[in-house]
Amino acid sequence: MLNEKMLKLGENRSVIREIFEYGNKRRLEVGAENVYDFSLGNPSIPAPKAVNDAMVKLLTVTDPVRLHGYTSAQGAPDVRKTVADSIVKRFGIEANADLIYMTCGAAASLTICLNAVCNEGDEVIALAPFFPEYRVFAEKAGAKLVVAKCRESDFQIDFSVLENAITKNTKAIIVNSPNNPTGVVLSKETIQKLADLLSKKQAEYGKRIFIICDEPYRELAYGVEVPYIPQFYDNTLVCYSYSKSLSLPGERIGYIFVSPKISDCGKVYAAVCGAGRALGFVCAPSLLQFVVRDCIDLTSDVRVYKKNRDLLYNALTDYGYTAAKPDGAFYLFIKSPEPDANAFCERAKKYDLLLVPSDSFGFEGYVRISYCVSTAQIEKSLPYFKKLIEEYF
Amino acid sequence: MLNEKMLKLGENRSVIREIFEYGNKRRLEVGAENVYDFSLGNPSIPAPKAVNDAMVKLLTVTDPVRLHGYTSAQGAPDVRKTVADSIVKRFGIEANADLIYMTCGAAASLTICLNAVCNEGDEVIALAPFFPEYRVFAEKAGAKLVVAKCRESDFQIDFSVLENAITKNTKAIIVNSPNNPTGVVLSKETIQKLADLLSKKQAEYGKRIFIICDEPYRELAYGVEVPYIPQFYDNTLVCYSYSKSLSLPGERIGYIFVSPKISDCGKVYAAVCGAGRALGFVCAPSLLQFVVRDCIDLTSDVRVYKKNRDLLYNALTDYGYTAAKPDGAFYLFIKSPEPDANAFCERAKKYDLLLVPSDSFGFEGYVRISYCVSTAQIEKSLPYFKKLIEEYF
Repeated sequence: MLNEKMLKLGENRSVIREIFEYGNKRRLEVGAENVYDFSLGNPSIPAPKAVNDAMVKLLTVTDPVRLHGYTSAQGAPDVRKTVADSIVKRFGIEANADLIYMTCGAAASLTICLNAVCNEGDEVIALAPFFPEYRVFAEKAGAKLVVAKCRESDFQIDFSVLENAITKNTKAIIVNSPNNPTGVVLSKETIQKLADLLSKKQAEYGKRIFIICDEPYRELAYGVEVPYIPQFYDNTLVCYSYSKSLSLPGERIGYIFVSPKISDCGKVYAAVCGAGRALGFVCAPSLLQFVVRDCIDLTSDVRVYKKNRDLLYNALTDYGYTAAKPDGAFYLFIKSPEPDANAFCERAKKYDLLLVPSDSFGFEGYVRISYCVSTAQIEKSLPYFKKLIEEYF
Repeated sequence: MLNEKMLKLGENRSVIREIFEYGNKRRLEVGAENVYDFSLGNPSIPAPKAVNDAMVKLLTVTDPVRLHGYTSAQGAPDVRKTVADSIVKRFGIEANADLIYMTCGAAASLTICLNAVCNEGDEVIALAPFFPEYRVFAEKAGAKLVVAKCRESDFQIDFSVLENAITKNTKAIIVNSPNNPTGVVLSKETIQKLADLLSKKQAEYGKRIFIICDEPYRELAYGVEVPYIPQFYDNTLVCYSYSKSLSLPGERIGYIFVSPKISDCGKVYAAVCGAGRALGFVCAPSLLQFVVRDCIDLTSDVRVYKKNRDLLYNALTDYGYTAAKPDGAFYLFIKSPEPDANAFCERAKKYDLLLVPSDSFGFEGYVRISYCVSTAQIEKSLPYFKKLIEEYF
């Protein structure tokens, strides 16, 4: 009598959550310092001090009726203007407040976009490996998730696989770069080829295909440029979040940017507003909207992530592990030394190394290591990673 | 090619929003002090100082990684425990943290509950007049909204009308007391009769009917008790919001309480978790969750609303208007002196009195007056209300 799909989603914990709970048990048994928990993507570096200061200032000087009052559903006008101006400045692309819709973070941005553009029976393509909730979000919007695997050599798009995945029912493709779980940044060349392929397919089927780019990791890139997709492809919706860039994942703040190059961008924006309304997002949290306005060009100090990446990638490949070089985010995706990544993760538990098997990311035989932990913890874990792979020699 | 329903929802501004925009225009033309804008339900009294102080304290003393980090999807355990303990204390009903799901406010609570319990083709009953978004939320959850009008004499439930509205497809009834737009509090007698009727109907159809109570106005009651529905009826989901009680409507914080008297309350809770996940609500804003924990038994100083209620109700009925006595919320629902409430609202604009016609609330021939404005503004408006009705003498 309940909605069985929702019940199943609520009853089946995600694999990541299961491992995290196991970690909690082990932390009690052997002490937190002896558990190497690489399961969660929770930023380990604090929000910039300026962000906290901005919050305190807002709370101290702003009229509380205005500060905590409803903003318009799409966000406060001055906040949206600041975001749009920043997009213009950073990416040299036309943008204005009427194309920005403030949201409760990237997940909300994605569900709103998917519900805005999808109809029952549409297909949405995810490039594997992908964040598992894409399937949940797409299916709730009435669409079917179609998986197109990336090439294993470098986790760039495999265009023959992708081309086969596109049909007359394809409504959108979700692109996530820097990627969760691989940390790979899609190259300019890849994005250009993607734009060309989609343009060809649009012409072939006489219909539009959206790129929905999921960009929570945009600011977490280590020495490489992250191409901005609206510069390459017109029918693009950008889902941005401040969760990782400002280390505010619990606060739920982000935005949707509807590219002005979409021929009927005003209509797409209206559909976004309609979906936000129907899903129950009245407005994005107001205090956080004003924080975004006041801290628009700040990011957390992500240098520690780069340090962790270098330490872990260099050591693990030196020990004999195989991994795509991650140029962003805070994930390393290593190949399991045995075909069954779940068995490998079980074996890793002997050393209290908690890793996430890749099956739920739509790509078997790998594990995800979230290195948003302290550098000291990574250093301590390295001998165990070494022992672990030596079991396979 | 877009989702046409979402597009329509985004393109068709709500009537309330239209009036508010008209008010903005008039404020520029004649000055804000000369526009009597009773259109919006935005609290006019500030959040308690203790709430701002609690925020500043949290920002000052709490580790930012914890303060702004993801909480579990259902909310931080200590926050949920505090909410549950408060329910036990206030209403003498069993409750625990595992029945509390923290949300981004009442709208989110409603969409999550509706998506958790409804299947395609289910019917959800709204008691008219009702908050117009109920229709949007129910339809997005795949249900059909069935309207049962209240009795016009006192806006309590008309049980013969309601009984006729219940069918074998009825999945839930939404109860909102104190009510938007009437301000009426449903009496104990009404709630008891509702519980009896639904119990009878459950037995008749051999299936469960939920009450979903939408309680953003619970703390805004003026000298009357607001019956707590889980005390009267087992299959109840409570949707609570701090928007009005703490004057934090923009911050989006509230909760769902799954009554422990639901036979499979654990399953219902799981479906709630699943729906929250699928709709894209990762967790309720973390800072606000902790504010709720630290300010659990506070409410804004609502005495000004009572003062406004008395002033407006007494004056308007004295001038010859008819209205149900509102015992809560901050709305007065007056009968239009002409059959077409829209025409009456147009006429009111001559005096810069901005009122909301009742059609979108599912009950024609009335207007809603939101008296969450300054008392001085109400005082200044009274002569115009008098002139307005005198046009009909």
